[in-house]
Amino acid sequence: MATELEQLKERVAQIQDLAAVARVLSWDQQTMMPPAGAHHRADQQATIRRLAHELLVAPETERLLEALRPLEESLDPDSDDASLVRVVRRDYEKEARVPTELRVEMARAAAEAREVWVRARAESDFESFRPALERNLDLRRRYVECFDDFDEPYDVLLDDFEPGTTAAEVRAVFGPVRERVVPLVARLRDRDVDDGFLRGEFPAERQAEIARDLVDLLGYRPGTWRIDHTEHPFASGAGFDDIRITTHYDPGNLEFVLAVVHEFGHGLYEQQLPRELGRLPTGRSCSLGIHESQSRLWENQVGRKLGFWRLFYPRLQQAFPQQLADVDVERFLSALNRVQPSPIRIHADEVTYGLHIVLRFELEQELLAGAVEVRDLPHVWNGRMHDYLGIEIRDDADGVLQDTHWASGLIGYFPTYLLGSVMSVQIWEAAKRDLPELDDRVERGELAPLREWLEQHVHRHGRKFLPQETLERATGSTIDPAPYLDYLERTYG
Amino acid sequence: MATELEQLKERVAQIQDLAAVARVLSWDQQTMMPPAGAHHRADQQATIRRLAHELLVAPETERLLEALRPLEESLDPDSDDASLVRVVRRDYEKEARVPTELRVEMARAAAEAREVWVRARAESDFESFRPALERNLDLRRRYVECFDDFDEPYDVLLDDFEPGTTAAEVRAVFGPVRERVVPLVARLRDRDVDDGFLRGEFPAERQAEIARDLVDLLGYRPGTWRIDHTEHPFASGAGFDDIRITTHYDPGNLEFVLAVVHEFGHGLYEQQLPRELGRLPTGRSCSLGIHESQSRLWENQVGRKLGFWRLFYPRLQQAFPQQLADVDVERFLSALNRVQPSPIRIHADEVTYGLHIVLRFELEQELLAGAVEVRDLPHVWNGRMHDYLGIEIRDDADGVLQDTHWASGLIGYFPTYLLGSVMSVQIWEAAKRDLPELDDRVERGELAPLREWLEQHVHRHGRKFLPQETLERATGSTIDPAPYLDYLERTYG
Repeated sequence: MATELEQLKERVAQIQDLAAVARVLSWDQQTMMPPAGAHHRADQQATIRRLAHELLVAPETERLLEALRPLEESLDPDSDDASLVRVVRRDYEKEARVPTELRVEMARAAAEAREVWVRARAESDFESFRPALERNLDLRRRYVECFDDFDEPYDVLLDDFEPGTTAAEVRAVFGPVRERVVPLVARLRDRDVDDGFLRGEFPAERQAEIARDLVDLLGYRPGTWRIDHTEHPFASGAGFDDIRITTHYDPGNLEFVLAVVHEFGHGLYEQQLPRELGRLPTGRSCSLGIHESQSRLWENQVGRKLGFWRLFYPRLQQAFPQQLADVDVERFLSALNRVQPSPIRIHADEVTYGLHIVLRFELEQELLAGAVEVRDLPHVWNGRMHDYLGIEIRDDADGVLQDTHWASGLIGYFPTYLLGSVMSVQIWEAAKRDLPELDDRVERGELAPLREWLEQHVHRHGRKFLPQETLERATGSTIDPAPYLDYLERTYG
Repeated sequence: MATELEQLKERVAQIQDLAAVARVLSWDQQTMMPPAGAHHRADQQATIRRLAHELLVAPETERLLEALRPLEESLDPDSDDASLVRVVRRDYEKEARVPTELRVEMARAAAEAREVWVRARAESDFESFRPALERNLDLRRRYVECFDDFDEPYDVLLDDFEPGTTAAEVRAVFGPVRERVVPLVARLRDRDVDDGFLRGEFPAERQAEIARDLVDLLGYRPGTWRIDHTEHPFASGAGFDDIRITTHYDPGNLEFVLAVVHEFGHGLYEQQLPRELGRLPTGRSCSLGIHESQSRLWENQVGRKLGFWRLFYPRLQQAFPQQLADVDVERFLSALNRVQPSPIRIHADEVTYGLHIVLRFELEQELLAGAVEVRDLPHVWNGRMHDYLGIEIRDDADGVLQDTHWASGLIGYFPTYLLGSVMSVQIWEAAKRDLPELDDRVERGELAPLREWLEQHVHRHGRKFLPQETLERATGSTIDPAPYLDYLERTYG
């Protein structure tokens, strides 16, 4: 069986290589590619997707998995090899149900819809985007039809991003969030916070220097990272030695700071994935939700707290003396953490952010079920934004057209943002139990213990276990909205 | 047979997509990738190479080619479809002889050797590079052994870069070059040319602005190109709408100008490849030699001539007034074209350049035949540099270690540089026959007629015909060193 194991490893390593290539191509498209090249890129991504699919669903994969069943059963389920067979079997059994042509059409439709969305958003013209979104949605319905082992159709989509997690489980988390955060936002929104100094002139080049200092302080491995400017920040890369984060340097404000800390959290997770599992699927990240728990932990529990700013604020003041010389660190921090409903998710504060996700999660389920028609989406969106956040949407570009996800065919992805925020609080509290005086250490710039704790308790598992199992190993509990909600009310209420 | 033709097209389109992906990954590695990511990239490139190989040599390819034989024979050989079947059959028959494992090992050894070479060159330590070069050479010998239909082993390697061209044909061109250029260089080398003003302070940012103006003037399609800074200039890209050239902005001299014009020639060829053949191999460039004929034509016949500089020199003077305000265009041009043997190929002038290639072509044949051992290479290199160019090599970094090609496993590639230079003169003279007053038009900035002539006579053929057939269609003659040598003696002698 040693031979079959090696053969399986070689086969899935190629699939991982293709996935890494797809990430590099996507990064390139968002940062470097001449815009006219989009149609070439769509062809390339469709071919990469097709070949990865074919490698995974080939009869040879099934033969190897069958041959390896006795080995898997003889090993400790936590072992690297048993985990590998288990993870590949799960991937195989899902992917084998999906016809190659459907996979390719999903990839191609998404690439084309993204181009349409860019123009539609620029012109705030939802109608011009509607057919592309309907096509993406229809393809997801056809995708769901490939499966029969689910409680509700949405589970199939969600499983692609948060494996093993169901819509019912998400509702059990998001329901309490909506119940407790909507009134919290209503209470906080009228507070008067002086934050005018966060808007002004902040030259982009100086922001870029600070971004580099910031990841340096937080602790990246030199020679393995790069930071670029994009319209929307993201983290990507080809592996633990090729990590690429991006951020947006808006010369009119300081939003880049927390965005960099956020993307650092993603990048650190990638950097600390288990090297010994190198090109294997078990060596990748666990899920989007767990990924987001890492970015949110750094953004919210480090980047929004006084200890960190006592450490880093002098650097920011020195870079922008005109704006910040007269602002002390406490005043700066309360401006940074101002709760102020925004129509735009990516500008949301820590408290209101979750409601943006609850809204998208609800709409995705309603669209998939046909309870909301695509043509009615702007109307429903705007109404619910008013109900949850008390704001008026004047323009679809600032409403239903703001995110790229649905254009990119990513339906079932949004919930992972809030799942990640919720889990990040559970993980932070577990880390604090193990690491005495963690807040003080942050203030002293001693971030290595936190990085190492995360590596030991979260990162080193890679994708060996499902997200809820991984969370339980790290914290002793599966997902629970109470610590997150208690934390928000304690911190902001 | 229509179905088989469509199936063949779909199959080879995927291979072309993978080739485009490999080019983007290589570009990324040289411009953007964090250096530590090289081992990930080697895995990715090996997998891309393996999958492209497997797609091409699959039994299905042979079945389709057999089924399409009657169609091919019924069509005009110049037609797109007959050309496609012919080109794919040629590729298939070559690649089917090469075991997948050998292909993968060649790619992997090259990736590893490149890393070794970077360090060896930095330390000018040939011995540390020797094992990697020996491995590359052994793999090429094993590659040659896969074939039996050649006159001499070198033909097999050359055919990968200049299909259908033999070592004997190259010798028939390079022999006269050596005979006539060695004495020409000896005559020219002692001429006193005032070129001190070409060295000084030329800020890189200003060079980058000029580079953009330059490609703008020469005529690129906006939204489809990008120009980056790299250690060594090159042209690459993913297709006719995604073209990427690079150049080196050395703040101490103006070498970037001709380098940009050179890479523009490559980029223009890619831009004007036949769109209707999009993802097909026939829609790609003909050969490296033909590619180089395009870059050399722009560099030498446009970029080194008075007409062009009467047009563009004021822009350069305005950018660097301190250095150039007092230098008139004639003086500038004679400095730019100074003949001065250099140990470094990429710094060579138009006259001496060819001898750098003759030397490498000779050494490659001798290495492959075992007439020169790898360990003796520095000694032989240095001796022959003295014989041909009259210069002493003090340091292997400036000698045998200067180029990346052998490190990258590219043996048989160098001759295409000089073949391209020779063909560029033939093509330029053909263009001049068709386009009255071509030099005057260049001086007036009317470059569209030249671009269109090249598109009509060279670019539109893509890869439908072998390089020598393509050259004959464009100029009425196959390769002939006489016009090139006459031109050099006339211009410089």
